[in-house]
Amino acid sequence: MTKHFDFYSDPDRIAQAIAALAELTEPDRPFTRLVFSPEFTRARQWLRSKFEEAGLECRIDTGGNLIGTRKAPATTANVGKLIIGSHIDTVPAGGRFDGIAGVLAGLETVHFLNQQQIDLPFDLEIVDFLGEELNVWGTSCLGSRHMAGLLTDDILDRVDSDGRRLADEIERIGGTGKPASGARPDAQSILACLELHIEQSDRLETDQIDIGIVPDIPGISRYAISVTGSAGHSGTTRMEGRRDALVTASDIIMTVRDIARSIAAQDNRHFVATVGRIEVYPNGAATVPGDVKMILDLRASNEHSRDMFLERLHATSADIGGRESCDIEIERISAASVAYMDDPLRERLARSADHLRLSHINLSSGAGHDMAHMSRIAPAAMIFIPCKGGLSHCPEEFTTPDAIARGSAVLIRTLLDLAG
Amino acid sequence: MTKHFDFYSDPDRIAQAIAALAELTEPDRPFTRLVFSPEFTRARQWLRSKFEEAGLECRIDTGGNLIGTRKAPATTANVGKLIIGSHIDTVPAGGRFDGIAGVLAGLETVHFLNQQQIDLPFDLEIVDFLGEELNVWGTSCLGSRHMAGLLTDDILDRVDSDGRRLADEIERIGGTGKPASGARPDAQSILACLELHIEQSDRLETDQIDIGIVPDIPGISRYAISVTGSAGHSGTTRMEGRRDALVTASDIIMTVRDIARSIAAQDNRHFVATVGRIEVYPNGAATVPGDVKMILDLRASNEHSRDMFLERLHATSADIGGRESCDIEIERISAASVAYMDDPLRERLARSADHLRLSHINLSSGAGHDMAHMSRIAPAAMIFIPCKGGLSHCPEEFTTPDAIARGSAVLIRTLLDLAG
Repeated sequence: MTKHFDFYSDPDRIAQAIAALAELTEPDRPFTRLVFSPEFTRARQWLRSKFEEAGLECRIDTGGNLIGTRKAPATTANVGKLIIGSHIDTVPAGGRFDGIAGVLAGLETVHFLNQQQIDLPFDLEIVDFLGEELNVWGTSCLGSRHMAGLLTDDILDRVDSDGRRLADEIERIGGTGKPASGARPDAQSILACLELHIEQSDRLETDQIDIGIVPDIPGISRYAISVTGSAGHSGTTRMEGRRDALVTASDIIMTVRDIARSIAAQDNRHFVATVGRIEVYPNGAATVPGDVKMILDLRASNEHSRDMFLERLHATSADIGGRESCDIEIERISAASVAYMDDPLRERLARSADHLRLSHINLSSGAGHDMAHMSRIAPAAMIFIPCKGGLSHCPEEFTTPDAIARGSAVLIRTLLDLAG
Repeated sequence: MTKHFDFYSDPDRIAQAIAALAELTEPDRPFTRLVFSPEFTRARQWLRSKFEEAGLECRIDTGGNLIGTRKAPATTANVGKLIIGSHIDTVPAGGRFDGIAGVLAGLETVHFLNQQQIDLPFDLEIVDFLGEELNVWGTSCLGSRHMAGLLTDDILDRVDSDGRRLADEIERIGGTGKPASGARPDAQSILACLELHIEQSDRLETDQIDIGIVPDIPGISRYAISVTGSAGHSGTTRMEGRRDALVTASDIIMTVRDIARSIAAQDNRHFVATVGRIEVYPNGAATVPGDVKMILDLRASNEHSRDMFLERLHATSADIGGRESCDIEIERISAASVAYMDDPLRERLARSADHLRLSHINLSSGAGHDMAHMSRIAPAAMIFIPCKGGLSHCPEEFTTPDAIARGSAVLIRTLLDLAG
């Protein structure tokens, strides 16, 4: 054991990789690398070259995941594979570390094994899961859902406002876009799935702890809320008799926040609800808004809280719609139950952190992650590293290369532990 | 006098022109012909060809207005000119008649004079005023403001989010973009300005009246409201401690509506306030919104009501900002006082309607119009024609070619009256 984590991984190499990927953004809106965008394709090319430099065999699977494989020696029986992965896509105006740190940590484990000339008795796959962030088709974690057989035909058939069908986009970047439901060809061969991620909250930083070991990932539900009123001239449409879709949407946005705040105050476990995306039609300054479309993002570690929230939202929305003479529709886009991480894997992660003399705590996730879906088909676990000020999904998002190196070391020790 | 208004103008020709211009729209968003857009440029070319077919001499003035002139005979002393005009640009997803009816009515007066071989003792100018609708630079009535010397340097220097400077856009379509402040070379030579427009409300239709004669146009004020909070991950940012710019903006939108409704209920004159345009940053479904920008559109025939509204809005916004830990800025983009139409011109319009046995009433405008600005430098007046269901600024906007023909006849009779 050493306190110098550069025995396990190289913070400078990590820093250079972070900087290189940060360049691959929409130039006017850092850091924006939306799945399927030109920036995303360039970042995939860059990552593939790094995978190949590290000796990994690269392929895109049917779900559009980029997979770099370090094969076990031919002499080893085909005992299965271990997956380490995260994602390189970002939200609009997001950060440089969310997802990216986890893919780079995976790559660091390969560099360590190469340098130490260690053969594992199983295949090691480093995965850039496709499109983990929520996209215009209303579904996050495209790649891990696909691998877990959860990306259904109806999701794959969705078409965005520019007429792009999700399945066609997956095919364009090298997948087949075919649904994997029921197929799961790989599921039985997956020994374990691991992911490193920034915490995206400030608990580790505040308490000066190195590593969070995640027991559960909340169920994320998303709803499309549409409000239909009547567009009209802002000068000639009298105040009485208006059917203003934006006024009505505003009432719903405040209602969502007020109900969520009251439930979060009563529930010890994680509960948040957010309207983050809104489109107003026609959105002209001189026109009373006629239509509004919004997405409600709901995350609960307690399914009773989620049900209670929805019941109250439906009731209040009906009142608002009646009062404002607007039609309100709330349609479920996606829903997931709480995902529990694998206990034996969590114990191995804790043992590895102890071995490295890194402090660690159990820490529930607030965000969704690819491991939530992978946990449905294989033992999965994840670790968090500190995140400055808890800021994430914004350009100010930050963690240090040293923190990523410490997390990588935990993954490496766990790999060696699993290898026996 | 005849009941057949095709003595004065041709409803079929009007219907064909309406249909031709309706084709010149963003194809996926009828009827959208934003000022300076490719559709707008094509519509200008089409209109110019129609002006030329009618024998008008065409030019673009320094403010980017398209002007077709029917010169008085050379023998006539240079006694000045009469302007008939409106606009062919539209709001996003607007209608086929707002502004367009008025330009076509102007053209009908020329066809009548040509057909009847009538020479007027003054120049007649048919004007497509540039960009009457509110644009991304936050200013409506570009062309009439410019002609009236009211388009100031600071407005001309504004740059939109794509980096387009307003003055450059005016130059691109054939104006100079130079400010006209103080210049007003033409003001003293303008004998009168007339405009025909759809009512954009339902009074004429409901009461089955042919013509509204407008006594005043409300002062329109526009304000940019910006809300600054903190963007954050929608899963990991706890409900308490959020600085959600969209929740805060929603509170302001409802406040604007509530204050406006209470003032409108007390004020006998016209008062409306609308937030029609909103931009949310980063507008990602999984991100707590960090910034919101909105435009508030305020129209009052009574300046005391406007002042009272603003006082209450400022006070309530300060409370909201404090409660939500967001910064709120309310910045005036433009403000105009009530514009009064010229009494002698209104009397001539009423006399012409009587002559044609058309029913008419006085009818205050709810919307702003180019005549509001022209009235600052010359005698100006306008007439309204019925508008189906009062719907405007939307694709359902409708009036009949016959209604436009009846209005054109009023303009023609008024021209002949002015010619003596």
